[in-house]
Amino acid sequence: MLEFVREDAGFWDVTSESLVPEDAEARAEIVVKQECVAAGLRELRALCRHLGVECTTTEDGSRVSAGSRLAELQGNARTLLLLERTLLNMLMRMSGIATATRRLAEVAGRYGVRVAGTRKTTPGFRYFEKRAIAVGGGDPHRFRLDDAVLIKHNHLRFVSLREAIRLARGVSFTKLVEVEVSSVEQALLAAEAGADAVMLDNFTPEEVERVMGEIGGVLVEVSGGITPENIESYARLKPHVISTSWMCTSAPWVDMSMRITEP
Amino acid sequence: MLEFVREDAGFWDVTSESLVPEDAEARAEIVVKQECVAAGLRELRALCRHLGVECTTTEDGSRVSAGSRLAELQGNARTLLLLERTLLNMLMRMSGIATATRRLAEVAGRYGVRVAGTRKTTPGFRYFEKRAIAVGGGDPHRFRLDDAVLIKHNHLRFVSLREAIRLARGVSFTKLVEVEVSSVEQALLAAEAGADAVMLDNFTPEEVERVMGEIGGVLVEVSGGITPENIESYARLKPHVISTSWMCTSAPWVDMSMRITEP
Amino acid sequence: MLEFVREDAGFWDVTSESLVPEDAEARAEIVVKQECVAAGLRELRALCRHLGVECTTTEDGSRVSAGSRLAELQGNARTLLLLERTLLNMLMRMSGIATATRRLAEVAGRYGVRVAGTRKTTPGFRYFEKRAIAVGGGDPHRFRLDDAVLIKHNHLRFVSLREAIRLARGVSFTKLVEVEVSSVEQALLAAEAGADAVMLDNFTPEEVERVMGEIGGVLVEVSGGITPENIESYARLKPHVISTSWMCTSAPWVDMSMRITEP
Amino acid sequence: MLEFVREDAGFWDVTSESLVPEDAEARAEIVVKQECVAAGLRELRALCRHLGVECTTTEDGSRVSAGSRLAELQGNARTLLLLERTLLNMLMRMSGIATATRRLAEVAGRYGVRVAGTRKTTPGFRYFEKRAIAVGGGDPHRFRLDDAVLIKHNHLRFVSLREAIRLARGVSFTKLVEVEVSSVEQALLAAEAGADAVMLDNFTPEEVERVMGEIGGVLVEVSGGITPENIESYARLKPHVISTSWMCTSAPWVDMSMRITEP
Amino acid sequence: MLEFVREDAGFWDVTSESLVPEDAEARAEIVVKQECVAAGLRELRALCRHLGVECTTTEDGSRVSAGSRLAELQGNARTLLLLERTLLNMLMRMSGIATATRRLAEVAGRYGVRVAGTRKTTPGFRYFEKRAIAVGGGDPHRFRLDDAVLIKHNHLRFVSLREAIRLARGVSFTKLVEVEVSSVEQALLAAEAGADAVMLDNFTPEEVERVMGEIGGVLVEVSGGITPENIESYARLKPHVISTSWMCTSAPWVDMSMRITEP
Amino acid sequence: MLEFVREDAGFWDVTSESLVPEDAEARAEIVVKQECVAAGLRELRALCRHLGVECTTTEDGSRVSAGSRLAELQGNARTLLLLERTLLNMLMRMSGIATATRRLAEVAGRYGVRVAGTRKTTPGFRYFEKRAIAVGGGDPHRFRLDDAVLIKHNHLRFVSLREAIRLARGVSFTKLVEVEVSSVEQALLAAEAGADAVMLDNFTPEEVERVMGEIGGVLVEVSGGITPENIESYARLKPHVISTSWMCTSAPWVDMSMRITEP
Repeated sequence: MLEFVREDAGFWDVTSESLVPEDAEARAEIVVKQECVAAGLRELRALCRHLGVECTTTEDGSRVSAGSRLAELQGNARTLLLLERTLLNMLMRMSGIATATRRLAEVAGRYGVRVAGTRKTTPGFRYFEKRAIAVGGGDPHRFRLDDAVLIKHNHLRFVSLREAIRLARGVSFTKLVEVEVSSVEQALLAAEAGADAVMLDNFTPEEVERVMGEIGGVLVEVSGGITPENIESYARLKPHVISTSWMCTSAPWVDMSMRITEP
Repeated sequence: MLEFVREDAGFWDVTSESLVPEDAEARAEIVVKQECVAAGLRELRALCRHLGVECTTTEDGSRVSAGSRLAELQGNARTLLLLERTLLNMLMRMSGIATATRRLAEVAGRYGVRVAGTRKTTPGFRYFEKRAIAVGGGDPHRFRLDDAVLIKHNHLRFVSLREAIRLARGVSFTKLVEVEVSSVEQALLAAEAGADAVMLDNFTPEEVERVMGEIGGVLVEVSGGITPENIESYARLKPHVISTSWMCTSAPWVDMSMRITEP
Repeated sequence: MLEFVREDAGFWDVTSESLVPEDAEARAEIVVKQECVAAGLRELRALCRHLGVECTTTEDGSRVSAGSRLAELQGNARTLLLLERTLLNMLMRMSGIATATRRLAEVAGRYGVRVAGTRKTTPGFRYFEKRAIAVGGGDPHRFRLDDAVLIKHNHLRFVSLREAIRLARGVSFTKLVEVEVSSVEQALLAAEAGADAVMLDNFTPEEVERVMGEIGGVLVEVSGGITPENIESYARLKPHVISTSWMCTSAPWVDMSMRITEP
Repeated sequence: MLEFVREDAGFWDVTSESLVPEDAEARAEIVVKQECVAAGLRELRALCRHLGVECTTTEDGSRVSAGSRLAELQGNARTLLLLERTLLNMLMRMSGIATATRRLAEVAGRYGVRVAGTRKTTPGFRYFEKRAIAVGGGDPHRFRLDDAVLIKHNHLRFVSLREAIRLARGVSFTKLVEVEVSSVEQALLAAEAGADAVMLDNFTPEEVERVMGEIGGVLVEVSGGITPENIESYARLKPHVISTSWMCTSAPWVDMSMRITEP
Repeated sequence: MLEFVREDAGFWDVTSESLVPEDAEARAEIVVKQECVAAGLRELRALCRHLGVECTTTEDGSRVSAGSRLAELQGNARTLLLLERTLLNMLMRMSGIATATRRLAEVAGRYGVRVAGTRKTTPGFRYFEKRAIAVGGGDPHRFRLDDAVLIKHNHLRFVSLREAIRLARGVSFTKLVEVEVSSVEQALLAAEAGADAVMLDNFTPEEVERVMGEIGGVLVEVSGGITPENIESYARLKPHVISTSWMCTSAPWVDMSMRITEP
Repeated sequence: MLEFVREDAGFWDVTSESLVPEDAEARAEIVVKQECVAAGLRELRALCRHLGVECTTTEDGSRVSAGSRLAELQGNARTLLLLERTLLNMLMRMSGIATATRRLAEVAGRYGVRVAGTRKTTPGFRYFEKRAIAVGGGDPHRFRLDDAVLIKHNHLRFVSLREAIRLARGVSFTKLVEVEVSSVEQALLAAEAGADAVMLDNFTPEEVERVMGEIGGVLVEVSGGITPENIESYARLKPHVISTSWMCTSAPWVDMSMRITEP
C-alpha cells in the first residue's frame, strides 16, 4: 500500500512540510458521514503499523451509523497528513462496496442464495475490491483468470461446447469448470456434458425458473444486470449464487473525513 | 498497464489456453451499451501496441451513442481474450468519469466556469482517473501533494492562517498557494494575506455570492457536495472553478462488452 | 523474464563486450544431451522476441532424443551470449521437471489416474515449474494459497474438522474444498462433512484401497512420498489423482548447451 | 523475500483466513526428516523479523540429524501459516545444495582442493543458491557475467585466444581472466598468453594430470561432469579448484515440515 | 533507498561477511572534511531506522566546519559497513548541492531574489537533488513535466506564442504558465498574452534590466549560464527568481568519510 | 531507463500535450556546446529504440568539438519532447565523466598506468557512471561490494591484517584480494601475507616510490586525492593503477541541448 501513498505524495507534501514542525505529534480521527458497512480497516491498520502510526479501529464488516468514528490515529503529524487521503480513499471505496454488497446479500440471503462479485474491478485495486466484497458478506468469485475455468461465449467461437468442457476438465482437478450460457437448452447441454456450474447470462426470472426445474447436480449462477431492484425476483428462485458487478460499478463511495483532534 | 493484465491473469488464463489454439488469429470489437463520452482509448492503443494487437478506435472525448463500436482489435486470439477484461475495466471506469465530468462541465461552461476533480481517486489508478477528467473537459486539479500548496483546516491546527500563507509562499514560485476556508471572513483574510486562490468549502450559494462580491485578485474555487443537481446554483455566481469528486465517487461505470467477430 | 537476464548479467557482460564486436550477428543452436521431454520453449520464444532475436524451436511437450536441436537462434552476437545462460537454465530446469512428470504420468495414466504437482517449488520460479508440470502432462494443482481451500493438519489445531469444512464452504463457490487426512476414519468423516476432495497423506496402498472402497462422491488425492518406484502401487487403486513434489525436488535438470554455429 | 510470500499467497490465504482467528498466536517448529547440512536459516530469520515472527534457529552450515528441529517460531498464527511453504521451500532447496556441496567439498578438501559452483542456477533464485554453496563450504564462483572474465569456446568464434586474453586484460585489474580450454595445448597457450586461470573443460584425469605437470603460475579449474562418484579421481591431481553444477542440478531437496506445536 | 544499498552490495558484501562476526556491534561516525552545508541527514535517518541502526545527526541545512561529525551511528557492524558507501554517496552529493545553492542564495538573497534549480538532475536521483536544493535555501522549481506549464522554444515550433499561452491556460488553474523567451520583445508579448511568468533565457544584464523596466504583473525568471561569478550582476536587477543548474552540474561533492569508532 | 523518463514526466507532460498535436512527427538534434568525449549514446539508442524513435549518433568515446551534433532523432514530436530532458541529463553527466576520465587517462597512459574509478557514484546511477568511465578509457574498478575483496581500515578494527587476508582468500578464487594500507610497512606486510593488490591510501609520491621499490608480485593501486594536477607525480612512479573519484565527484557535466529541427 506504500505505493498508494507515493502516488499521492510525489516528491514530498509541500504543504505539510512547510507548515507543520518535523517532530510534531498529533491525534486524528476518521469519521463517517453516512451509515455504512465499514471495510478497509484491516488495510488501514497494516499501513499505519508500517509507518509507525498507532491506531484503534472498529471492525471490518460492522454496520456503523452516520457520524461514527471508524478509527483513531496517533503519531507524527506530518505522517498523519501524508496518509490522510490514501487512507480515506481506501476506506471510502471499500466501504462503498461492502455496503452495497451487504444490501444485496441481505435480500438474497433470505432465500439462502449467495451474492458474488465479478472481475469488473478497478485495475490495480482488485485485491481491495474483492476484500470489500468478502467483508460485505459476498462471495469474491474468481480472483483471476487462473483460479477457475469459465467458458464464455467468446471461447465458444473457437470450439464446441462439448469439446470445451472436455478440454477444460483436463486443466486441473482443483479448478471449477463453469460455462456461461445464453439459453435454457445450452444450460442443460452444459450440465449434461459435465460442467460443474452454469452461469445463466441475462436470463429472465422465467428462464431461470425453467433451468432450476430441469437441471440437476450442477451449480447455477445467475448473472447479468442484477441490481438491488431486481435481485429478489431472481433470489426467490433459489439459484446457488447470483453474481453482479453492481457493487463495484454503480454503488457510490461512502463519504468520510479525517480530522486532527489534538495537534 | 501490463501490471493490470498480470493482476487479472495470474499464472495463465487456464480457459483460453485450454480451448483456443496457440496461434489462432481473431478480430474483436468493443461495443458500448449506453450513450457516453469515450475515454481510455489512448491507453487501449498503447496497451494493444505493446502486445502486438492492431487496433482502430474512436477518439477519446467523443460522445458516442448506445451500440457504438469504440474499438476494433485484431491479433492473436489468446492475447485478445487475455486483454478483454483489463481493457473493458479501463474503458468502463474512465468513460464513466468522462461522461460525468462532461455533464457537469456543460452546465458550468455555460457560465464560463471550469469543473475540477479532486484527489478522491482510486488508489493505484489516479493517472487514469485524472486523464478521464481531462478527456471529459474537466480540470484535473492537483495530481499529488507536491504540485501546489493547499492549506486545509487540518494544517491550521498547527499554524495561523497568515503565517501559513507566508511559509507557503516560500515553497516555490512555481506552486499555487491555495487556502481552504470555511467562512466568508476567512476567505477575505486569506486573500488579503497573499493566497493565490481560496477554496470555499461547503459554502451556500449565498455565501459564495458574498465572497465573489467582496474578494478580488484571487481565484475562487467552490467545493463540497457538488452534484449535477446543485452545480448550476453555484455556477451562475461565476467562481473561477467548481471542484467535486462526484465523477469519481458517485458516477456509474459505462457498460461495454467485447465480442470476438472473426475467430 | 528480463529480470532473470539482469540477475545473470549484472552491469554488463564484461567478456562479450570486450571480445565480440558490438554489431556482430551470429547464429546459435541449443542442443540437448539426453533424451527428455522439452519444456520452456514458449518462454524462450517470448524472451527472444523481446530482445530482437529470431528463433525457431521444437514444440513444448515433445519427446526429443539426445543430441537433438531444441532451438536455432539468430541475432546480435552479444545478445545471444547474454541470453545463453538464462535460456539454458530455464530450459534445463523446466525440461527436467517435464520429463519427470511425463514419466510419472505415463504410469498413472495407464490406470486413468492424473499426476499433480504441489506447492514445493523454487521461490520466484513457480510459474515456470507449474508450466513445466502442465507441459509434461501433469496437473499443476493449486497455483497459490488463494485458488482452493486445502485444510491441513496445522489448520485443525485451531478448529474441528467438521467446523473447518463448514467455514471453508463459505469462502467461494468457485473454490474446491479439500481436506488433508491422516487416517481412513478422518477421510470418511471429511467426505461425510461435505468436503469436495480428500488428500490421503502418507497412506499405504492398503489404506488407500480401504478409502476407495468406502468413500463416495468426493475426489481422492493420494499424496506423500510418491516416486517413480512406488507410483504404480497407488495408481492401480485408481484414486482420482496422485500428487507429488518428486518432479520438482528430486528430478535432475536436463543437460543442454548452446553453441554459436555461425559467427 | 516478501515477493516469494506474495507468489505463494496470491490475494489472501483463503484457508487460514476462514479457519484461524485473526489474532490467534501460535508456536511452530520446523523439523528436518533427513540428515543434512542446514542452510537458509539466516534468510528465515530475516523474513520472520520482517513479519514480526520471533524465531530461534540452529546455525547455517551445521550438520543436523534426521528429526532435528531447525527452527522454532512464535507469532501470529495466520502469519506462521502464510510463511510455512515459502520458508520450507527456501530451506529445503538451500539445504539440499549445502548438503551436496559439503559432500563434494569433503572429498576434495582431503587433497586441499576447493569445490566451486557454476552459473547453472534457478533463474530468480541465484542469490540463495550461491549462498547455499558458500554455507556448504564451496566456492560460489562468479555471481554474474560482470564479476570476472571467462573466455569460453563461443567467444573464440569471434577472436583468437591470444587476442582475447589481451583484450580481456583491459577490462579491469579487479577482474580475473580465465579461459575455458578443451585441450592440453590450449591450456598451455592460455597460460603463456597471460590468463590468470584455465578451466579444463571435460578433461580426463590423465589430461588434467598432464596440464598440472606442464603448466605453472596460473590457477587450474577442472570442470565438466563432476559428481560425487568421480570427484576424487580429479581431486587427487590437486588442481586449484573443481567446479560443478551437480549440487544445483542433480542433488535432491532435503525433506522438512513445519508443525504447529501450540495453537 | 534500499535499492541504493542493493545496487552497491550485489549478492553480499564478501569482505565484511568474511572478516566481521555476524553479531558484532559497533559505533561509527561520519566526519566531513570540508566546510559545507549539510544535507541528506533526514534521508540517512530514514535509512538507518529501516535497517535497525540507531543514529544521531546534525540538522540538515546547518553549516558545518571541516572535521565536524555529521552523524554517529550504532548497530550491527556488518550493517554499518554495508551502509557506509551508500550513506556517504548520498550525503556527499546532497551536501555539495546544498552548499553550492547556499552560496548562490546568499548573494541573491541580499537583493531579495530567490535562486531556483532546474530539471538538469541525475536520472533516478532527482528527489534527493531537489531536496538538497531546498535544504540549501533554494527553490526546487518544477519537480516534473506535470507540475507547471513551461513553454519553450521547441514547443513554439508547433504553435504560435499567443495560441500556446491560450492553450496552456486550459490545462489547470493549479498550474503556473511560464514562457521561455529569447528577446525583450518576446517577453513583453508573453506577458501581454497572459503568461504568469517569463523565463529570460541567456539574457545579458542589460536586456534583463530592460524587461524589468517595461514588464508588469508577471514573474520574471532569469536563466542561462548563471554561476557564482555572475549571479550578482543579475540579482541586483531584482528579477523574481534566478534559476540555474550550476549546483547540480558543476559544484563538487563534499568530501566525507565514515570511521568505525568502537568495534 | 524508462523509470528515468517516468521520474521526469509524472502523469503527463502538460505542456507538450496541450500544445503539440498527438500525431505530429518531428526531427531533432542534440548538439554539444563544449569539446568533450561523448558518452551515453549507446544508452540513448536503446531508449529511443524502446520508444519508437529513430536515431543516428556519433560513437561513444569519440572526442567531439564544441557545436558538434551528437545525435539526430526522428519520431513522434511529443515523444521527442518527453525524452529531451532525460536524454540530455544522461548524456551530459556521462560525457562529463568520460571527458574527465580521458583527461586523467591520457596523462597516466603515457607511463603505462591505468586510471580507475571508485564506488563514489550517484546512488541509482552507478551503471551509467561506470560505463562512462569505461568509455573514457578508465578501469571501472569494483562494480559492487561483491566483485572483489577490499580490506579497508574499518575492517581491520575487527581482525588482524594477516588473519583478514587468510579469511579473504577463502571467499572465492575468482575474487581479487586487495588491502587498503596507510603505511609502507603495512603495504609490505600485506604483500607478504598473500594479498593480490595493495591500495596505497593517501601516500605521498615519495612513499609510493618506496613501496614500488620494495614490493614485488602484487598489484599496486595509488588512491586518495588524485586530480589532474597531481596525477603525473604519481603516474611517473608506474604503479599498476591510480584510482580516483575525481571524474565523478568534481568534474562538471558537459553542456548540451536538443533542438527541434523540423516540426
